[in-house]
Amino acid sequence: MTRARLVSYSRGGKSGYGLLRETGIVDLSIRHPEWPTLREVIEAGALKRLVDEAQGLPADFAEAEITYEIPIPAPEKIICVGVNFPDRNEEYKDGQAAPPNPSLFVRFPRSFTGHGQPLIRPPESKQLDYEGEIAIVIGKGGRRIPEAYALSHIAALTLCNEGTIRDWVRHAKFNVTQGKNFDSSASMGPWLTPYEDEAQLADVSLETRVNGEIRQRDRTSRMIFSFRKIINYISAFTTLVPGDVIVCGTPTGAGARFDPPIWLKPGDVVEVEAEGVGVLRNSVVNEEV
Amino acid sequence: MTRARLVSYSRGGKSGYGLLRETGIVDLSIRHPEWPTLREVIEAGALKRLVDEAQGLPADFAEAEITYEIPIPAPEKIICVGVNFPDRNEEYKDGQAAPPNPSLFVRFPRSFTGHGQPLIRPPESKQLDYEGEIAIVIGKGGRRIPEAYALSHIAALTLCNEGTIRDWVRHAKFNVTQGKNFDSSASMGPWLTPYEDEAQLADVSLETRVNGEIRQRDRTSRMIFSFRKIINYISAFTTLVPGDVIVCGTPTGAGARFDPPIWLKPGDVVEVEAEGVGVLRNSVVNEEV
Repeated sequence: MTRARLVSYSRGGKSGYGLLRETGIVDLSIRHPEWPTLREVIEAGALKRLVDEAQGLPADFAEAEITYEIPIPAPEKIICVGVNFPDRNEEYKDGQAAPPNPSLFVRFPRSFTGHGQPLIRPPESKQLDYEGEIAIVIGKGGRRIPEAYALSHIAALTLCNEGTIRDWVRHAKFNVTQGKNFDSSASMGPWLTPYEDEAQLADVSLETRVNGEIRQRDRTSRMIFSFRKIINYISAFTTLVPGDVIVCGTPTGAGARFDPPIWLKPGDVVEVEAEGVGVLRNSVVNEEV
Repeated sequence: MTRARLVSYSRGGKSGYGLLRETGIVDLSIRHPEWPTLREVIEAGALKRLVDEAQGLPADFAEAEITYEIPIPAPEKIICVGVNFPDRNEEYKDGQAAPPNPSLFVRFPRSFTGHGQPLIRPPESKQLDYEGEIAIVIGKGGRRIPEAYALSHIAALTLCNEGTIRDWVRHAKFNVTQGKNFDSSASMGPWLTPYEDEAQLADVSLETRVNGEIRQRDRTSRMIFSFRKIINYISAFTTLVPGDVIVCGTPTGAGARFDPPIWLKPGDVVEVEAEGVGVLRNSVVNEEV
């Protein structure tokens, strides 16, 4: 069974969203001007209803006509979890034990590009690195969400290549903000897969390939902090709202892991794949300055 | 001379913005429905024009009728600079030399409350701490902004009490995200002061008082990373856009600095004052859970 795939895109210079079917895209944004983006659809609790509606409709145009955008163009928050798979903590070689709580940082939407768009390697560094991750999109907001109910707050899943400028991550005391926020250095998508049951998350394979070669591969069942724990912990300090995106951590095997490190270079193609979600694919180009 | 003071507020359950005069508030939002918030005013390059317009108008209502909101309710980014005054680096007692680049972290708008509203001490911690800071609001966006032109990208100044849950700042490996993002643990305001010339920033006194006692006092001329450098450095990785807020660092003397530390407690009143901007005043209350 192929799960529903909700895409955000631009076409002819105009942004929209719709359902991707075998035959093309059913334009839902034109049918629902009351919801400018998928964020408002989720806020209205209408994601599954829109999927049902679109299943019965013919495609309005071909997939080839769209440029993918990130699924939620302007979420209130994008929060990323660092160091969440076995061996990742050891990669830091700082002799510290695994911490009791997830490490969290923030990315701005403009640090991401959509599926099929190139990742931008800036002239400031040669150390562009990949990190394949699963992201959850919050459907029902809340504060201090108990682990027992945490999964019911998820509206959808998507993928991230949480591209990182590795030397800028260590530019300053504490905090990785700058190395994680170069414009278009990461990608998100290709689409939203509505969340229906825990089997979509519990023990899912997550894999990153560079030019077809497997670099990262692990299963979500091995995450140090579970999806439930992540939602519980983050909502302890901030109120989660519909459309918020939480990027849940990457397996070992980023380019920084190799000796010598292998950085992404122009022409490389990175694919992030998770069972039941899809494949997020991006090439790499040098920024033209 | 009192500089113009542009306020964002709610009144009768409705959000608005206007000019604060001696006699009360000139409601500009009702006259300019094309700009829903001060962010759009700044985006339109209309901040100074609105000030001129309002100077000739009578006040629409008294200051007592409004509840202050943060000046830009939903900026695209709020980026904070850590460790930016002398002695602050030493406070961390980790034996590291001052870093060559500013440490940066991100706060979400909902971690701030407006002038006159209470800071919320959550039940998760007793370690609520103050950090008085000057914030700049970006007027003209840009990427890789040279230091020489950096100040011309500033639209306005405001103040922050960059309230921090100190133990949660060290909850995890790297990154202070969680300790800096408890809902309403910080404040911003009281208003925007339009930026006109470098004298407003170059050597300005910045002071934080708790219950009238001076705890932090320094001058912007002693900042490790200047306003020019901060804009230049941040815009190296991310495109700044109108309404973005950069919180520029706090002097030594936070409650964590004392031995034993002195945390904020319910009933305390914190004031952050900078010459030419104003006084941001907030009390402290326990969160009701």
